[in-house]
Amino acid sequence: MELQFLGTSSGTPTKTRNVAGVALRSADGWVLVDCGEGTQHRILRTNLSPHTLRAIFITHLHGDHCYGLPGLLASAGLLNRTAPMAIVGPAPLERYVRGVMDTTALQLPYPVEFIDVADAGRATLLSDLAVTATALSHRIPSFAYGFTEKAVERKLDPARLAAVGVPRGPLWGALQSGLDAVLPDGRTVRPADVLQPPRRARRIVIAGDNDTPELLGDAVRDAHVLVHEATYTEAVLEKVGPGPQHSSALRVARFAREAAIPNLVLTHFSPRYQDSQGPLTLADVEAEARAEYAGNLFLARDLARLALDKEGMLSELASPEA
Amino acid sequence: MELQFLGTSSGTPTKTRNVAGVALRSADGWVLVDCGEGTQHRILRTNLSPHTLRAIFITHLHGDHCYGLPGLLASAGLLNRTAPMAIVGPAPLERYVRGVMDTTALQLPYPVEFIDVADAGRATLLSDLAVTATALSHRIPSFAYGFTEKAVERKLDPARLAAVGVPRGPLWGALQSGLDAVLPDGRTVRPADVLQPPRRARRIVIAGDNDTPELLGDAVRDAHVLVHEATYTEAVLEKVGPGPQHSSALRVARFAREAAIPNLVLTHFSPRYQDSQGPLTLADVEAEARAEYAGNLFLARDLARLALDKEGMLSELASPEA
Repeated sequence: MELQFLGTSSGTPTKTRNVAGVALRSADGWVLVDCGEGTQHRILRTNLSPHTLRAIFITHLHGDHCYGLPGLLASAGLLNRTAPMAIVGPAPLERYVRGVMDTTALQLPYPVEFIDVADAGRATLLSDLAVTATALSHRIPSFAYGFTEKAVERKLDPARLAAVGVPRGPLWGALQSGLDAVLPDGRTVRPADVLQPPRRARRIVIAGDNDTPELLGDAVRDAHVLVHEATYTEAVLEKVGPGPQHSSALRVARFAREAAIPNLVLTHFSPRYQDSQGPLTLADVEAEARAEYAGNLFLARDLARLALDKEGMLSELASPEA
Repeated sequence: MELQFLGTSSGTPTKTRNVAGVALRSADGWVLVDCGEGTQHRILRTNLSPHTLRAIFITHLHGDHCYGLPGLLASAGLLNRTAPMAIVGPAPLERYVRGVMDTTALQLPYPVEFIDVADAGRATLLSDLAVTATALSHRIPSFAYGFTEKAVERKLDPARLAAVGVPRGPLWGALQSGLDAVLPDGRTVRPADVLQPPRRARRIVIAGDNDTPELLGDAVRDAHVLVHEATYTEAVLEKVGPGPQHSSALRVARFAREAAIPNLVLTHFSPRYQDSQGPLTLADVEAEARAEYAGNLFLARDLARLALDKEGMLSELASPEA
């Protein structure tokens, strides 16, 4: 499973950061969580294709999370996509998109299916990932989406194979693929007798705008990664006041520590934080988070790729700027 | 008067070209013609500001000409713009924008005034420019906007001043500013007696998508510059067929020659034309236009700046990539 960030700024784009969008790649393709204006421009700089995009999840209907949706849908049409596109999100997502399509004469050569966030868990949505949705606290309804591997491959345990006496050969393959095997001496061996315990299914939770990280307590219980906004540092949040209903780096990091989340990715930074030089920089955000959280911490950058390995460890990949 | 191109691709953005948008600077600020997705991202790379943007003109409601509008309006709001914004365009422009605002909880700290294209000529719209709108031929209603200087400064003619015998001094200033002057000998001199003939007011016409350049015959009669789409070369247009209702470089260039337009800017190129190498390049578009048109020809590039001097000559300025 791999994340690639297509936008990491909040509210408005900057020269180095676009507004919200993150791609999640898995075995069967990729999904997009949020689609701020210019997401399709960022996609042009990746090896992601609108043809292999399986579904789009919108966390909430603020413009910096959804104004790129009509353009991405239009461009997928101009690229002759024919596969249906599922778009998941809270109301009034469908009214927003249909309204734009109606007023701008946008006709698509593929069907779009709108799925209310309440139905995000439907089993047939993604072949290889189970989806959860968790309500957050923001100025308008906002949600976190969780993605969990549906199937986890299991490996044969050589020691147990030897102890039971399964001869090397086709019986190993049968057991590996979940079939019982009958040994030459007539005994029946079940896969559970000779397979290693399954690893934990990987789970990534990607949250929308939210001023109360604690709402994610249940959602992150088995999660390896939480991607959460840290729009402000605590000092700026206190100056801005609670009106915008965003989180500070401190509050998210404290929650991640208390919830024992092994990998934390902060994103959705206020444009007041410069990348390097300036009165306020991302280094301030990072320092505040590190003071609370000793886990594996990342501050998202546009186009950065983060891979989650089967041991549940998140690490950054080289991301060639195309 | 100066043009700066914010997008020069048709349909979808490419790595080097955004979708439609062009800024026109004049004495009193700047106006934007079309606002495809990502226009605000391009503005970040210019010295244009959403604070000094006086009005937005939308040629037609296809997405590659208007999907950047909600995001630009939202960002101007986050920048605390308070001045009213006029948005001119054909129906259903207001329904499109209001629908997006309603469904995405977009509230602006400044008033937006929607002006139907039929009222584009209202005298109070721009202080220094008179605006015309001309209906074109496309799949949906599409228009060209013409911008003409309202006032043209006039210079005193030293030979005529000497012949009439106006003494150097405050009387010159009075005559220059349009007042009659009474000479020491009692004669009254009128400005028309001593001013040089006025130069022609500069006029720039920026057209939306259009398959019939000849519809612009009246609009360009006194124009110094025509900016027009040349989506295809003629060979590609014939292969694609008339369905998309776009122009070829050949058809636009031929019209510009017949209409004796001194400066022609082609834009809105199909992404199939590469900037340099490839089976189809912009050089093909340029060659086709040059074969028909011997005037001052430009192929627009993103962020390129073209200045129209008072003699009606268009020339490219250095455009520092910020």
